[in-house]
Amino acid sequence: MNTLGTLFKITSFGESHGPAIGVVIDGCPSQLEIDIDFIQTELNKRRPGQSNITTSRNETDQVEILSGVFEGKSTGAPITLLIKNKDSNPFDYEHLKDIYRPSHADFTYQNKYGIRDYRGGGSSSARLTAGWVAAGAIAKLLLKKYSISITAYVKQVYQIALNIPYTELNFEEIERNNVRCPHPETALIMEQEILKAKNEGDSLGGIISCVIANCPVGLGEPIFDKLNAKLAQAIMCINAVKGIQFGEGFNSVNFKGSELNDSFINKEGKTSTSTNHSGGIQGGISNGEDIYFETAFKPTATILKSQQTVDTAGNETTLEAKGRHDPCVLPRAVPIVEAMSALVLADLVLVDKAYSL
Amino acid sequence: MNTLGTLFKITSFGESHGPAIGVVIDGCPSQLEIDIDFIQTELNKRRPGQSNITTSRNETDQVEILSGVFEGKSTGAPITLLIKNKDSNPFDYEHLKDIYRPSHADFTYQNKYGIRDYRGGGSSSARLTAGWVAAGAIAKLLLKKYSISITAYVKQVYQIALNIPYTELNFEEIERNNVRCPHPETALIMEQEILKAKNEGDSLGGIISCVIANCPVGLGEPIFDKLNAKLAQAIMCINAVKGIQFGEGFNSVNFKGSELNDSFINKEGKTSTSTNHSGGIQGGISNGEDIYFETAFKPTATILKSQQTVDTAGNETTLEAKGRHDPCVLPRAVPIVEAMSALVLADLVLVDKAYSL
Amino acid sequence: MNTLGTLFKITSFGESHGPAIGVVIDGCPSQLEIDIDFIQTELNKRRPGQSNITTSRNETDQVEILSGVFEGKSTGAPITLLIKNKDSNPFDYEHLKDIYRPSHADFTYQNKYGIRDYRGGGSSSARLTAGWVAAGAIAKLLLKKYSISITAYVKQVYQIALNIPYTELNFEEIERNNVRCPHPETALIMEQEILKAKNEGDSLGGIISCVIANCPVGLGEPIFDKLNAKLAQAIMCINAVKGIQFGEGFNSVNFKGSELNDSFINKEGKTSTSTNHSGGIQGGISNGEDIYFETAFKPTATILKSQQTVDTAGNETTLEAKGRHDPCVLPRAVPIVEAMSALVLADLVLVDKAYSL
Amino acid sequence: MNTLGTLFKITSFGESHGPAIGVVIDGCPSQLEIDIDFIQTELNKRRPGQSNITTSRNETDQVEILSGVFEGKSTGAPITLLIKNKDSNPFDYEHLKDIYRPSHADFTYQNKYGIRDYRGGGSSSARLTAGWVAAGAIAKLLLKKYSISITAYVKQVYQIALNIPYTELNFEEIERNNVRCPHPETALIMEQEILKAKNEGDSLGGIISCVIANCPVGLGEPIFDKLNAKLAQAIMCINAVKGIQFGEGFNSVNFKGSELNDSFINKEGKTSTSTNHSGGIQGGISNGEDIYFETAFKPTATILKSQQTVDTAGNETTLEAKGRHDPCVLPRAVPIVEAMSALVLADLVLVDKAYSL
Repeated sequence: MNTLGTLFKITSFGESHGPAIGVVIDGCPSQLEIDIDFIQTELNKRRPGQSNITTSRNETDQVEILSGVFEGKSTGAPITLLIKNKDSNPFDYEHLKDIYRPSHADFTYQNKYGIRDYRGGGSSSARLTAGWVAAGAIAKLLLKKYSISITAYVKQVYQIALNIPYTELNFEEIERNNVRCPHPETALIMEQEILKAKNEGDSLGGIISCVIANCPVGLGEPIFDKLNAKLAQAIMCINAVKGIQFGEGFNSVNFKGSELNDSFINKEGKTSTSTNHSGGIQGGISNGEDIYFETAFKPTATILKSQQTVDTAGNETTLEAKGRHDPCVLPRAVPIVEAMSALVLADLVLVDKAYSL
Repeated sequence: MNTLGTLFKITSFGESHGPAIGVVIDGCPSQLEIDIDFIQTELNKRRPGQSNITTSRNETDQVEILSGVFEGKSTGAPITLLIKNKDSNPFDYEHLKDIYRPSHADFTYQNKYGIRDYRGGGSSSARLTAGWVAAGAIAKLLLKKYSISITAYVKQVYQIALNIPYTELNFEEIERNNVRCPHPETALIMEQEILKAKNEGDSLGGIISCVIANCPVGLGEPIFDKLNAKLAQAIMCINAVKGIQFGEGFNSVNFKGSELNDSFINKEGKTSTSTNHSGGIQGGISNGEDIYFETAFKPTATILKSQQTVDTAGNETTLEAKGRHDPCVLPRAVPIVEAMSALVLADLVLVDKAYSL
Repeated sequence: MNTLGTLFKITSFGESHGPAIGVVIDGCPSQLEIDIDFIQTELNKRRPGQSNITTSRNETDQVEILSGVFEGKSTGAPITLLIKNKDSNPFDYEHLKDIYRPSHADFTYQNKYGIRDYRGGGSSSARLTAGWVAAGAIAKLLLKKYSISITAYVKQVYQIALNIPYTELNFEEIERNNVRCPHPETALIMEQEILKAKNEGDSLGGIISCVIANCPVGLGEPIFDKLNAKLAQAIMCINAVKGIQFGEGFNSVNFKGSELNDSFINKEGKTSTSTNHSGGIQGGISNGEDIYFETAFKPTATILKSQQTVDTAGNETTLEAKGRHDPCVLPRAVPIVEAMSALVLADLVLVDKAYSL
Repeated sequence: MNTLGTLFKITSFGESHGPAIGVVIDGCPSQLEIDIDFIQTELNKRRPGQSNITTSRNETDQVEILSGVFEGKSTGAPITLLIKNKDSNPFDYEHLKDIYRPSHADFTYQNKYGIRDYRGGGSSSARLTAGWVAAGAIAKLLLKKYSISITAYVKQVYQIALNIPYTELNFEEIERNNVRCPHPETALIMEQEILKAKNEGDSLGGIISCVIANCPVGLGEPIFDKLNAKLAQAIMCINAVKGIQFGEGFNSVNFKGSELNDSFINKEGKTSTSTNHSGGIQGGISNGEDIYFETAFKPTATILKSQQTVDTAGNETTLEAKGRHDPCVLPRAVPIVEAMSALVLADLVLVDKAYSL
């Protein structure tokens, strides 16, 4: 339900237009320095209204720590992170009270729960991912102690794809443009495409790539808590995600075993692989190579075009365009993908530690 | 680790060349008729040696019920299913004791655990999936009470793809050929391709499609136990799986929101959608339409060709081809994909039932 | 760790002298009317400063709902309940920074975590039970739909015991005195005993009895989630609890099987028992009779007398009496025992519901 | 349900008169030497028919390891332990098919599940504890690495109590008599009392004391996985247990805080306590002193005397005495109490390890 993880666990709560959203982290080791500026920096990457190509909802997303931190360090008790909602005008949503937005969670929530906070999607809103990003920032602080780093970037927006292997990209470019694509020329085209969609009142999807570097050998718990399985679950929880693939992923099928197998080599005394088609995971356990995966986001469902739909009474009707919209969530989803990955890794680091004799 | 599920839970155990593999199901509702013939039929679809295009390991995979069933019905107590290993010749694996097979779990298991049952991959072996298929058969018996049906088939083998939408296929064709592809002509080409790889001592991957029909609205528990997230985790646990996508999946990115959104319509009094790009899931909850997803299997790592690798002491060496191999696991993976899906759905059916007032 | 329950789950957070304490309830069924006045009434029973025989810390313990409730009803999303700390003077605790209070959690927390919020016991403080009482109030609202009622009362304070069976007591007397003992004469003696201890700067323990009435047959999940096992775990989490016994409890050993067995009888068409030595639970499952148990609270560790102890550097020293103290927590523990019981029952009601065909 | 633990987890399965009972241990660290003789020795202490004062059911309780152990060591994969049922005559139980034994689980199981394996109590039978003892033996092997030792003994049988503090007893006496009471003279009286009850066809309960020595400071995870809370849950799962108390337990209420608090002292450079009324646990965390608790077993429900009861159709009737019975389970419960304690401690050792920076 709303808790993720075995030892490093987060419980997510809140609604888009309630008083606040937040997260409780249960299982953060004690004595970890909690750098609140770093948490805020991560949140700012996800913040709405950060550039001309995102939604105009204006939230400062200021994080407050309610518990679990004493004199700047974690105490081992649950860490509660709260982010108050500010720019939430409930009147913006009155027209959605009795109508289902196509491809939104309105219909499924109403039918599952028999009740629904229709204001901005309520608890189904991607606004809750702010809490995950804040929690992910703390997971990153923990992973730093193990030298593990996580970098995500926008690889494709709509039909504009960056087909350069991640190993040839300069990750420092990611934060230098609004799209978070590490290739400035491609980023520019993507940005133009997003602006075009924004003007059309339409939305675009895309692909985010994520690379986990310096992961030690041994993370992931077979059989059902495999590293790839836990990452897949976590990433698939992000709103609008429709697929995930590790290493060569779906492209693996185009090769024979003799072509795809990653030969082991002795690289300066360390067993390594000559290629990395596996994406750093074998048998559900990290093998010490880079872990990399890609995840597909569909275009967001909210658009400013009229759409055919049905109201809660079952009558067919037209949903008229109204309000704010986010033409492309990819740039803001980059920190979310990193955060979810960090949460999974932090959890598996602790589990692996428990079992080491 | 080795338990999957919240209420309908399975615990998997065993090694490829130990005395037996099996599974304990904890949380099967009582009074369910346990049709042992049906379980065996499902197992037979996964059985090695079932046709000329699979491994020649010969296992009858006869299932025994050790607990939880009384006079043909479940009692509510844990159901233990045991499958004894028969054709397990430990001498076949002596040569793998000190060497890592490329892209296998040998290296990661050895490094994570400091010890490894090298005989046939030990507990990392896909042989354990027999237990999952047996458990999945019981999950299917439970789902039958809710009219939910699950059908998987081979959609692609290596570069031979069946690009016909599932809605236009005749699923009765699936079990009529060795490949489990519902298009006889394509199945034939796939079979030839597999035989060619078999003769070459090479292996092929592919794509399996899975369709879940008659799923009621409301399955899946936001935020972190979303239906797609739990399915992704479960499917990603299957050996050799490298990716999963729901509905239009990665192809979603090629459309704009206005093109991809599934409009709601009133279909004979029932709210339905005019298209199903979402793949039957919105906001992590089933919406009553068909759920469909695709999953990519890399070619199996074990091949009968010499490969460069490293031994446990770190020396580079050549792994000489030897023993049995499975040129393409896709046909045998079809019942596994169905089983994992059934286990997830059975679990979510029970959870949803708990919360309905 | 800080989450309790399988389906009706609470996550507890906060510190005695942090900004707030609270709880997230994950798994409350939707459409439940959330009566905030009832929650507050329950909290008021636990509130410090409610009478002359409790601590003088002054907290209004006003509950705020941050999420999960829409237009007065639960939505199925996590319900976050927040209680801000008001009367928390950190300077009151400076003298405890480097010293371990005897029989307190100071020493174990410091050694386990290497850091400790020493202000009022930090996260080990019984103040966190306010969150549990608030969550328990919502559990009670859910249980009301199943007609289950829970009543606890003070049965013993120090050596003053009420040795009348609960069946002969008038539970309406409980809230009519400060001690929450349903026997006015005994309550008066208890109150005097507590005031005496208060004046002496000493503390008293006691026994709370709890009766769960109208529990349907079938709650509790063998083998390891037995109703008595889950209640024991939950009750044992309450600060200062040292023991729990069900039905005849420790006194059972004084009888032979032939004397203690509860014969089944047909009571107006319903299978019932002639006696109830078992306390309403057989084989870990409720049998439809009253469930009753007793739990022992040691006298609270904080007293206003000088005590021998050791400082964090290991030096023996004297802890000088200072500040506020609660001479007897029993009256305020009554709502806590009820709340923990309600949380366990609400959880088991949902689990049982899931498994009913 | 049937799984206990967070990291060192056991899943229990089987029925008294099914083919076998057993347990899967998930989460045993790898490379632990699995001494099968030790497991068998532990099982022999629980074995029925071991002396003239236990049931005459004759089971050798030979343990088989089905998985998870390779060349004498754990591999990190699930360890499956199987014990086949041998002396199970289903005809012995035909007369119990339609009748509820007083104070047994027959009635609650039938009503909860709508079906019941009536042969020897089915899955509610104490026979399943053999699996727990086997798993507990492996937990003990793990705890040995941390020097933690666990010793239980019979402190009271019926009204014969051994009122000598455990610190003054010689634990080597425990295994020298059939009762497992470390005081030979008392053991003799207890044995006579048990034989008398055996001849009368009646049953006796009693109290078991358990002492955990050399437990390091820091085990137990506040708030809800406190060491005492987890022990209470686990012990309360043992058939016939009606109560548990830690340290002074219920007797705590007879003292004032100033009398009961355990003063800290510096004992040869180590912070220790001058007394140990707390029983080695403060704030739910072990404090380095001996942990000790007592648990009450009611007399077993099965007796060889006629009893009034009700049949499954609701008719009042008489249950005629028949078959075998165990006049006092206390001697055989000693290894069970140790095993459950060991399982809890092994689990908490691993969890604590995970969180240590």
